[in-house]
Amino acid sequence: MFNKKLENLKNYEAGKPIELVVREYGIDAKDVIKLASNENPFGTSVLVEQALKNASNKAHLYPDDSYFELKEALAAKFNVTPKNLIIGQGSDQIIEFIAHAVLNETNAILTAGVTFAMYDIYAKHAGASVIKTPSASHNLSQMLELYKANKDKIAAIFLCLPNNPLGECLDASEVYDFMREISPKTLIVIDGAYNDFAKFKDAKKAIDPSDLIRNFKNAIFLATFSKSYGLGGMRVGYGIADESIINELGKLRPPFNITTLSLKAATIALSDAEFVDKTLKNNFEQMTRYENFAKDHGIEFLPSYTNFIVFKFDTQNSSQISQELLKKGIIVRDMQGYGLNAIRITIGTATQNDKLFEKLDEILK
Amino acid sequence: MFNKKLENLKNYEAGKPIELVVREYGIDAKDVIKLASNENPFGTSVLVEQALKNASNKAHLYPDDSYFELKEALAAKFNVTPKNLIIGQGSDQIIEFIAHAVLNETNAILTAGVTFAMYDIYAKHAGASVIKTPSASHNLSQMLELYKANKDKIAAIFLCLPNNPLGECLDASEVYDFMREISPKTLIVIDGAYNDFAKFKDAKKAIDPSDLIRNFKNAIFLATFSKSYGLGGMRVGYGIADESIINELGKLRPPFNITTLSLKAATIALSDAEFVDKTLKNNFEQMTRYENFAKDHGIEFLPSYTNFIVFKFDTQNSSQISQELLKKGIIVRDMQGYGLNAIRITIGTATQNDKLFEKLDEILK
Repeated sequence: MFNKKLENLKNYEAGKPIELVVREYGIDAKDVIKLASNENPFGTSVLVEQALKNASNKAHLYPDDSYFELKEALAAKFNVTPKNLIIGQGSDQIIEFIAHAVLNETNAILTAGVTFAMYDIYAKHAGASVIKTPSASHNLSQMLELYKANKDKIAAIFLCLPNNPLGECLDASEVYDFMREISPKTLIVIDGAYNDFAKFKDAKKAIDPSDLIRNFKNAIFLATFSKSYGLGGMRVGYGIADESIINELGKLRPPFNITTLSLKAATIALSDAEFVDKTLKNNFEQMTRYENFAKDHGIEFLPSYTNFIVFKFDTQNSSQISQELLKKGIIVRDMQGYGLNAIRITIGTATQNDKLFEKLDEILK
Repeated sequence: MFNKKLENLKNYEAGKPIELVVREYGIDAKDVIKLASNENPFGTSVLVEQALKNASNKAHLYPDDSYFELKEALAAKFNVTPKNLIIGQGSDQIIEFIAHAVLNETNAILTAGVTFAMYDIYAKHAGASVIKTPSASHNLSQMLELYKANKDKIAAIFLCLPNNPLGECLDASEVYDFMREISPKTLIVIDGAYNDFAKFKDAKKAIDPSDLIRNFKNAIFLATFSKSYGLGGMRVGYGIADESIINELGKLRPPFNITTLSLKAATIALSDAEFVDKTLKNNFEQMTRYENFAKDHGIEFLPSYTNFIVFKFDTQNSSQISQELLKKGIIVRDMQGYGLNAIRITIGTATQNDKLFEKLDEILK
């Protein structure tokens, strides 16, 4: 009954939810610290919370499916037009549209060796194959070599800038140099889910979507409200590209693909620059503490341009460490699934990080 | 750059949102009556509203992607197990999973002549073709004839019970008789988005999902929180089927496909039987008024088992009538897009319906 391609599919392994720790370890929800899914440690912005309360009697109404107001606000922010924008149920869904728009059983995507798992998953949904660089992190010369060797096969290239789950980021100028080598018939996806974090740390990492799409008609920039804006649970992302790309992806967008409350939340969140600034500032202040903790404990870490950091272990086993942390009420992401003996930790608030340091220190002793 | 199948795709035409009427006609939002998208006229249940307020500071947290609590509650309600359940971003998304799981460029779906537009749209996403009965409404003997003539090609049959946008419904016993004629390798989709309305009007129309999936391993029952539960804007639907089907569809489910607030809303809504009962009772009381209005004005109507009614026009043009109503602040759905000179009106509250009758009467004079 089922299409053959389903045989090769596996599901994305989501970070463990707080509810599961409560159910399985009997720990009170308020004592659980989740540093596993790169959620905003400051929670929901007060402006968004109020907007959601105000909209709580509108749950029966479908959203304005044109997303008029949100697109106007995003267009103004990024100096593009609403016609350059597509809204997704998280930026994940834009990846899904891309997969079904350009991929099929005869072609392939090109990605870094270890990068966001959904590129791979959606490519397989469309029956396409996945070509990865030998290098785990983004290596543009390896990418270019693979691209040239498989030019007829590669329909899309995914660059995750900065890279989830490793944290590294390329300079925008390097990226543009690379893109000039690519055929205009190959779609280049710049996944900027964490790009505002990278930009805050180092202006050279910033990709300006308006510049990008003016110079590259075959590029799409992806972004999300899930991280710095603190709306992970509301599932809103967007793509910015030349109108010719947006029109084709738009044909695959289901009606009402974000909720009425998500639409309100995203529109308000966009106006709350203060919340985003506080988030970014806290993130890199606290990141330094993680780097120092790693140095003090002889743990190898990957310098990060995101809101998480990867700790690589040598003799100790990362699955065991994650499990021990879980029992103590702290959720982090084990990276054995990515072939790495490492854990990925979301940067929390100072208090959450204190607790993580305390518990991890106990475990490593 | 793009797959050839995109050339044949067109978007679902959503009901016009209130925001658009405000923007285009300068009518105050509070004076606009939307009877176009089969939303619940009683709005959001008070229990749901409170639950959404309580969860409004949880927008940053991804939902428990196992949907543990919601699945437990649905399983108990329908006398199935959580393994028989899949949750979708509206039942629409389950249709999308089905399309990508069983359809491809070599096969087809079978549907009624005029039925829910998303079957057609998602089939085309997968490159499949669509076979429709000559009859606009569900006609099982025509369906069986087409099925037998195209047995090798038809991978899935969609029955919309009751049918959106026409309103008719088959008896469950007729449906089961039909299903016994179908190969166990053909997936049969019973779209029960409005089945609770039909069941309320006539018990013979009720499809019991537990019976259905026990007797037919090739069937899936779809349902939604968008209508009687009043959660159209929250986008939550579900599918009930044998575990073998759920497992395959589950491979295509993106992580976090409903929002954190949607999950809360749906779980609470399920416990608010009183709200649903009130909705169903009001619906058919008010439906009688629509039937009487039609008779009084010599308008042909289709007897409806849903929360909407179709008025067919003879000499007058339905697009013009919809447009006139729009200018008066009432949104209904013109059906010219379905090839019918008709409008579909959602049954509102008594007050909303009074207004519709008043304005439509003015227009028809």
